[in-house]
Amino acid sequence: MTARIEDTFAEAFDIKVSRILITAFDYELALACARETTGFATSIIMCPAEAGIDRIAKPEETPDGRVGVYAMICNPNEEKLEKQLLARIGQCVLPAPTTAVFDGLPNAEKKFRIGYKIKFFGDGFEEEIKVNGRKCWKIPIMEGDFIIEDSFGFIDGVAGGNFIIMAESQASALMAAKAAVDAISNVEGVITPFPIVASGSKVGSRYRFLKASTNEKFCPSLRDRVESELPKNIKGVYEIVINGISLDVVKDAMRAGISVAMKVPGVVKITAANFDGKLGKHKIWLNELFD
Amino acid sequence: MTARIEDTFAEAFDIKVSRILITAFDYELALACARETTGFATSIIMCPAEAGIDRIAKPEETPDGRVGVYAMICNPNEEKLEKQLLARIGQCVLPAPTTAVFDGLPNAEKKFRIGYKIKFFGDGFEEEIKVNGRKCWKIPIMEGDFIIEDSFGFIDGVAGGNFIIMAESQASALMAAKAAVDAISNVEGVITPFPIVASGSKVGSRYRFLKASTNEKFCPSLRDRVESELPKNIKGVYEIVINGISLDVVKDAMRAGISVAMKVPGVVKITAANFDGKLGKHKIWLNELFD
Amino acid sequence: MTARIEDTFAEAFDIKVSRILITAFDYELALACARETTGFATSIIMCPAEAGIDRIAKPEETPDGRVGVYAMICNPNEEKLEKQLLARIGQCVLPAPTTAVFDGLPNAEKKFRIGYKIKFFGDGFEEEIKVNGRKCWKIPIMEGDFIIEDSFGFIDGVAGGNFIIMAESQASALMAAKAAVDAISNVEGVITPFPIVASGSKVGSRYRFLKASTNEKFCPSLRDRVESELPKNIKGVYEIVINGISLDVVKDAMRAGISVAMKVPGVVKITAANFDGKLGKHKIWLNELFD
Amino acid sequence: MTARIEDTFAEAFDIKVSRILITAFDYELALACARETTGFATSIIMCPAEAGIDRIAKPEETPDGRVGVYAMICNPNEEKLEKQLLARIGQCVLPAPTTAVFDGLPNAEKKFRIGYKIKFFGDGFEEEIKVNGRKCWKIPIMEGDFIIEDSFGFIDGVAGGNFIIMAESQASALMAAKAAVDAISNVEGVITPFPIVASGSKVGSRYRFLKASTNEKFCPSLRDRVESELPKNIKGVYEIVINGISLDVVKDAMRAGISVAMKVPGVVKITAANFDGKLGKHKIWLNELFD
Repeated sequence: MTARIEDTFAEAFDIKVSRILITAFDYELALACARETTGFATSIIMCPAEAGIDRIAKPEETPDGRVGVYAMICNPNEEKLEKQLLARIGQCVLPAPTTAVFDGLPNAEKKFRIGYKIKFFGDGFEEEIKVNGRKCWKIPIMEGDFIIEDSFGFIDGVAGGNFIIMAESQASALMAAKAAVDAISNVEGVITPFPIVASGSKVGSRYRFLKASTNEKFCPSLRDRVESELPKNIKGVYEIVINGISLDVVKDAMRAGISVAMKVPGVVKITAANFDGKLGKHKIWLNELFD
Repeated sequence: MTARIEDTFAEAFDIKVSRILITAFDYELALACARETTGFATSIIMCPAEAGIDRIAKPEETPDGRVGVYAMICNPNEEKLEKQLLARIGQCVLPAPTTAVFDGLPNAEKKFRIGYKIKFFGDGFEEEIKVNGRKCWKIPIMEGDFIIEDSFGFIDGVAGGNFIIMAESQASALMAAKAAVDAISNVEGVITPFPIVASGSKVGSRYRFLKASTNEKFCPSLRDRVESELPKNIKGVYEIVINGISLDVVKDAMRAGISVAMKVPGVVKITAANFDGKLGKHKIWLNELFD
Repeated sequence: MTARIEDTFAEAFDIKVSRILITAFDYELALACARETTGFATSIIMCPAEAGIDRIAKPEETPDGRVGVYAMICNPNEEKLEKQLLARIGQCVLPAPTTAVFDGLPNAEKKFRIGYKIKFFGDGFEEEIKVNGRKCWKIPIMEGDFIIEDSFGFIDGVAGGNFIIMAESQASALMAAKAAVDAISNVEGVITPFPIVASGSKVGSRYRFLKASTNEKFCPSLRDRVESELPKNIKGVYEIVINGISLDVVKDAMRAGISVAMKVPGVVKITAANFDGKLGKHKIWLNELFD
Repeated sequence: MTARIEDTFAEAFDIKVSRILITAFDYELALACARETTGFATSIIMCPAEAGIDRIAKPEETPDGRVGVYAMICNPNEEKLEKQLLARIGQCVLPAPTTAVFDGLPNAEKKFRIGYKIKFFGDGFEEEIKVNGRKCWKIPIMEGDFIIEDSFGFIDGVAGGNFIIMAESQASALMAAKAAVDAISNVEGVITPFPIVASGSKVGSRYRFLKASTNEKFCPSLRDRVESELPKNIKGVYEIVINGISLDVVKDAMRAGISVAMKVPGVVKITAANFDGKLGKHKIWLNELFD
């Protein structure tokens, strides 16, 4: 293993994070629902949210004793986050077969009353119930009754934790990126909204109307045309972006991902994306992860 | 088999349909990208588009000779459809590993210049190329080069083709719904954006602020409280909604789905959702499908 | 919920159990290998082993720090079990991309020297190495080096733990069976080798040459032709069979599976398969599971 | 692209091939059954069969109008092939939820009466029926009735069609191998029983008791210790093995797989495994595939 970690930092941002727990009669149903609910949500640059699957849940940890999936939905703006929760739960969880949905951050101080608002869909036939001590709504629908918790917590989390994998071949970099994503899937409280980024960007462009454009210094096919930041033998580069419920879990995820990525043959260097500290509040130094 | 088909019609609407062909080095990569690209897109009531996967493509039918996935993205409004294509391709296909994207409706007369617009991301390093005779752009990115066709066709298609499955148990109705979705996946040019609807709605509600609410006449748990339209033995109801590139393929999909749904033990009745012909342009009579 | 648990017992047997830990660079590769390795292994009646996937493993619990999958392989006969391990690891793990394989029962007293035997495939180029303190062999192959632990533990476990789900429809029984299997997947140290049994058998048959045949008393389509043991409203029946590393975990799995199966609408009764205590050593009374 | 095809041939063998069509209410059920049925079947060296999934089937091409999966099961010995069909269908298809099984080679002249033999499981309650003109047996089981065709065809097919991918990195070779397998999945009448081989073997070994051992001349980690056949820059090598119902489809599969494998960045050379023509009846010259 000759991969080395560059002495640099990932620049991360504040973001509002909500976390929902979708339950169903089996994992296939819960996961299909979670994928639809968290789709079109890689980056708030042009998506209405950043979202992804956190982890699967065992029956003994869900309010209704069925299997489940934790998903996270994020937006820097509180009002927009609430709208996204209403739309994504209302359009992607409510209609999904056998699902119920509960607050995945029950200890959060701030709450959106998503269930309270969606229950009006019951047109007066909805009823308040308790599920394992939690205030929920039972809404009659075609398949039976849909159960949704009254309120959903949200907290101040972190977006844009990241690291960049450089390798001797596109495939080596991709294998390392996949390995990293799977390792990160075991860290609670984080998502990789993309989940793998093949097209990193820089701020600005030569076109007046475009605020972000390809980061030519990291493009293997432009090595001979620009002042490249790529070592000579690099032919493939991917970035992993991580959002989390706290700075600590984002660091845990970066550590887990980098550790396994460096084991993949052909990986040469791990670095991170930052903007010289001008944009994000949090600096995560790569080397400090492994102290 | 004692299931019967009600003498009624599905009411379907006009919609603008685009179709993209995502290629990659393997199906797993192409499908993961297509799922993210078509997520959060069950219904334009609160989602920004209706979208889904049409079918997988063989290497010999793709411009770059790799495996692929056809996906459809729909919106009744032409301008909104273009914005959705820009956002979904720009945020979910461009960053996805090893993908390229081509027009899935090359014979359409009307085109959006999606590739032309996204190529500016290349910040001047992009180049026009031909891929199997098609005008494309090659944009340098971190993993190598991203290939995107210059223009993407869109046509006048049909949304809201549907049928409703009623069964003696929730599980029988769901098994039939799954069987229908899988049968429909073999019909070219259609998607099931939900893909299964557990919560059918009626127009309006008792609440002034709510335009749609649960269709209580189809809710098994409300049978004794409302004038139910459910036969006595019905305990589970699901709806399948279909969008397609033409009225004919929507009919083909309905026929394929209904045929297999009726084979599932416990299915009692097939009907369809309509609004007495007041809202949609197209009436699809269920019985005529089987003439 | 009106499902009830019959006052009866599951009859379980002794079996030799081995457990292997397959690691790889991502879960997709590890799971594909584990599925091939544990295939054709539902029942030792006509399969050469009973096998299945126990659970996925996190990087921090595997000797090589990569993600992994625990799989179990069982046979009542010690010699046959060793042969199965040699054949399944040699033919299905060794050739699988990026995999390594470690002992999943490192504390077992009895060991098969599987790695020691398979290392001869290295034709003299193999080397002994330590991986996180474990004695392993490094065998040069086309993709690089294959790592296999020297010895694999096996213990006296339990086979044939079971319960039977009866429901008002085939689909309800199947949905409950799926829910049970997914709940059981969270219990460590067990597999469901079938994973769902649609065709329960009785000992013997009217044909001299056949030792087992359909259990007609449990067949919904024979209710009117035989002395059926099915309540009147039963139209679908499935059995879940469980093997485990101890009687306790088999009981845990039965409890987890039954608990969630009973939540599925349409499930009427839970019972179990036994042979009046004549064949198996262990009696697991269903009601005692819930004391 | 600088990959080149070596001027050599793949050496292929005669084998008996059967092909079964498993139908179910949805693809998930059919595929889960097919995977179990074709597991532990990479190579007849130590597995009891070579088997795999050919392709999925549309409702309109199956006798019972449901979705399905074609699987192939192979063995050079006719008697052993019949035993494998009996065991794999009896233990892995019969017990699988909602499945039925039909002959996937209805035009074959030679037939095994698999259904006739398995129907005795019905213990006298089985009945002969016709399904879309085919002679079948209906066997009462716990979930309802299991349908199996009376006879299953087998033919003289080809085993061991192959090609070898050499690349600058392990990951590039693996990405190419995956791309090849997915391309080949679109060719009708073939399977890749392994599906990817990381550990190619040579005939014989320095150990008297071992008939096959690692092919050191193709091992990247042994380049400096043996007379290697690997070009200097090769760090990863995989082999794809193909069985088919005819020499022609095996050639089609090789052509499809090689074509896409050569598109993967980092792939340097395509070659094939042979034994100087001493063992197999068929020589498939790589260059002739592309004439």
